[in-house]
Amino acid sequence: MIDAANHLIVPATPSTVHWGYFSRTLAPVATIASGDFVTIETLTHHAYDDHARMIMGDAGAESVFHWTKETKNVDRRGAGPIDASLHGRGAGEGLGVHLCTGPIAVRNAEPGDVLEVRILDVRPRPSRNPAFAGRVFGSNAAAWWGFHYSDLLTEPKPREVVTIYEIDATGDRNWARAVYNYRWAPQTDPFGVVHSTIDYPGVPVDHALVEENHRVLEGIRIPIRPHFGVIAVAPKEPDLVDTIPPGNFGGNIDNWRIGKGATMFYPVAVPGALFSVGDPHASQGDGELCGTAIECSLSGTFQLLLHKRDRLSGTPLAGLHYPLLETAEEWVVHGFSFADYLAELGPKAQSEIFARSSLDLAMRDAFRKMRHFLMTAKRLSEDEAISLMSVAVDFGVTQVVDGNWGVHAILKKSLFIGDAA
Amino acid sequence: MIDAANHLIVPATPSTVHWGYFSRTLAPVATIASGDFVTIETLTHHAYDDHARMIMGDAGAESVFHWTKETKNVDRRGAGPIDASLHGRGAGEGLGVHLCTGPIAVRNAEPGDVLEVRILDVRPRPSRNPAFAGRVFGSNAAAWWGFHYSDLLTEPKPREVVTIYEIDATGDRNWARAVYNYRWAPQTDPFGVVHSTIDYPGVPVDHALVEENHRVLEGIRIPIRPHFGVIAVAPKEPDLVDTIPPGNFGGNIDNWRIGKGATMFYPVAVPGALFSVGDPHASQGDGELCGTAIECSLSGTFQLLLHKRDRLSGTPLAGLHYPLLETAEEWVVHGFSFADYLAELGPKAQSEIFARSSLDLAMRDAFRKMRHFLMTAKRLSEDEAISLMSVAVDFGVTQVVDGNWGVHAILKKSLFIGDAA
Repeated sequence: MIDAANHLIVPATPSTVHWGYFSRTLAPVATIASGDFVTIETLTHHAYDDHARMIMGDAGAESVFHWTKETKNVDRRGAGPIDASLHGRGAGEGLGVHLCTGPIAVRNAEPGDVLEVRILDVRPRPSRNPAFAGRVFGSNAAAWWGFHYSDLLTEPKPREVVTIYEIDATGDRNWARAVYNYRWAPQTDPFGVVHSTIDYPGVPVDHALVEENHRVLEGIRIPIRPHFGVIAVAPKEPDLVDTIPPGNFGGNIDNWRIGKGATMFYPVAVPGALFSVGDPHASQGDGELCGTAIECSLSGTFQLLLHKRDRLSGTPLAGLHYPLLETAEEWVVHGFSFADYLAELGPKAQSEIFARSSLDLAMRDAFRKMRHFLMTAKRLSEDEAISLMSVAVDFGVTQVVDGNWGVHAILKKSLFIGDAA
Repeated sequence: MIDAANHLIVPATPSTVHWGYFSRTLAPVATIASGDFVTIETLTHHAYDDHARMIMGDAGAESVFHWTKETKNVDRRGAGPIDASLHGRGAGEGLGVHLCTGPIAVRNAEPGDVLEVRILDVRPRPSRNPAFAGRVFGSNAAAWWGFHYSDLLTEPKPREVVTIYEIDATGDRNWARAVYNYRWAPQTDPFGVVHSTIDYPGVPVDHALVEENHRVLEGIRIPIRPHFGVIAVAPKEPDLVDTIPPGNFGGNIDNWRIGKGATMFYPVAVPGALFSVGDPHASQGDGELCGTAIECSLSGTFQLLLHKRDRLSGTPLAGLHYPLLETAEEWVVHGFSFADYLAELGPKAQSEIFARSSLDLAMRDAFRKMRHFLMTAKRLSEDEAISLMSVAVDFGVTQVVDGNWGVHAILKKSLFIGDAA
């Protein structure tokens, strides 16, 4: 039962967000108890692709994105150097791009525990600009980190293209439609840095510099799948951690199934767990081919439950060392090129991971994780698990754009006679 | 309208099957006209994993699998040397393993045309052994070519395991259940060759040499997805072609969506097209992890329609250079590590392909094919196609066990307002 006493509300403000990085050193914005509820506002880091539709008139978004010659309300954007001495893009260098709200500490959470995150509700954030009041918009950027970028057919090559979508979130059969697109043109940020490509998040886009094409994807409507690209507990590593590659701490998994009604389980790595949510998406296909989804600000309501490590033995969560998804009908494990890339790839892990992206490795990891789940949670022998995986488990491409590429494996609950559906 | 005049029936007999290879030099078992119907019996090459359930009493299967010291009714099994001078496994060396029925020639088909294959019905082939009369069985082999084989946790390592399934094909909610499994033990074929692993198809398994474990996968039932692993037109290459790697001619795509109600489109490469069907499956997961599906003899009824090359321009089939699947709700393209491996990999293509399997390459190919389909059949610009692929197209792992690994891309028809659903 949700009531004022056990329900925390966390608006998105400059003091409740962290942009582009995770860290065990972040001070929690609040602490809650196991079983409590929290409603979290999340903002898409792509909102400035169309300021009029996604920021203007929205006090929270205006404040988080506020960036003038004099003032940048959220300065650090990414896990890079704060003085931008690496690339000169800006504070944090955009090494990590996702606006995350949090972290929320969970009382008594310790390394070795498992944090259960129930996603009770997901709601789009309507425009507060009177010209678009109540309507919902998102942005899809076909960007330089996309799978397609070096493999274009038509001129000019290469190019980055932003497509603005409108989301109809009113009906039972929700959909999105494209409104217009534009080719990225160099943008000069308020501090005077020119961004020839989409290399730093939240750069104001001057629409006088781009050409809007309003007849795109006509006659096409896209069923929406609102979800959070990023849900994370803090990694155990001491450094700031780029939000882009997902890992055993969760993070930027980018699986559209992580939406309303879904439950995630994460191994806790640091005291308090330090739960953050961000990278809201209205919809994404398996693969996230061009580098982004329909990036769209959302609010979510979550219940957090702590499973203490000394009570995991003999339960389906025993030995859980990876982010696990449960939906009404499925169990889903997430394989990555490197399951725990921060530990596996050494001191340069955060750059090395981008050079070693591979679906072949992610498939290997997804196989091993599903085998572990079947042998632990379902008590099958290895031979039973392997046969079942071949005849009834579906492996899919989660994303090929986040450095640590992902393959997920889907197990239907209905296979198990007597299990709840 | 099907009637005796336009409906060919092709039983599986030693003279209507070819085992383990495709070839443009095969004499067609029949020739039909565009628009005609054909019912084709297919046998699983794994039937001898349980002779009592899948061969005994079945005149067609008994004849095709017949192999004694004196007589082997279908001698060549695979595209290798007929004298087994390469490995000594047997005629054809098992370089290619799938029992295929056909080929059927289509009158007037020429290279550059497109063959449309409508799968009107798919029916399991019941046991003819009085002890199991009317019941349906299949075999899943976790074999040396499986993705798991070099990555086992438990002893003995490595090992091959065969699981026999029973398929209930009577109800609305069809399912399979495991009956028993056994670890492969060396088998001596009737010509005296010892098969320490599953290295040659159709080797009689002596059940006195294996231990049947009858308590496996208890309480688990698997929704079935009957389909044909192999549907092919003949490749244009002059050699015998191993049935294992799929390619632009179709072949061993191993996508469970290629079942009843589905339609496939293939680019025709040789006169008459030379259509073959085999590798029947009761069910498979995306990935086909352990090397096989539930391999289960099936019969299918097909309608073949020829689209002449000079009438393709301006249609959704213009420029079709890959196998394309249409279901009631989806369009699906099939990407491979190498789209046309026989041409791309040179004279040693048929061995080289197994050394160069990669999901990363298959993802690249699936991206390019879906882009081609969206730009050709749906007349989108490249920018529109790329955005749509990222937000609404789902990429999945088709198989990681057929040399030329596969990734498919699924486009929902419902995206297109006004399109038939």
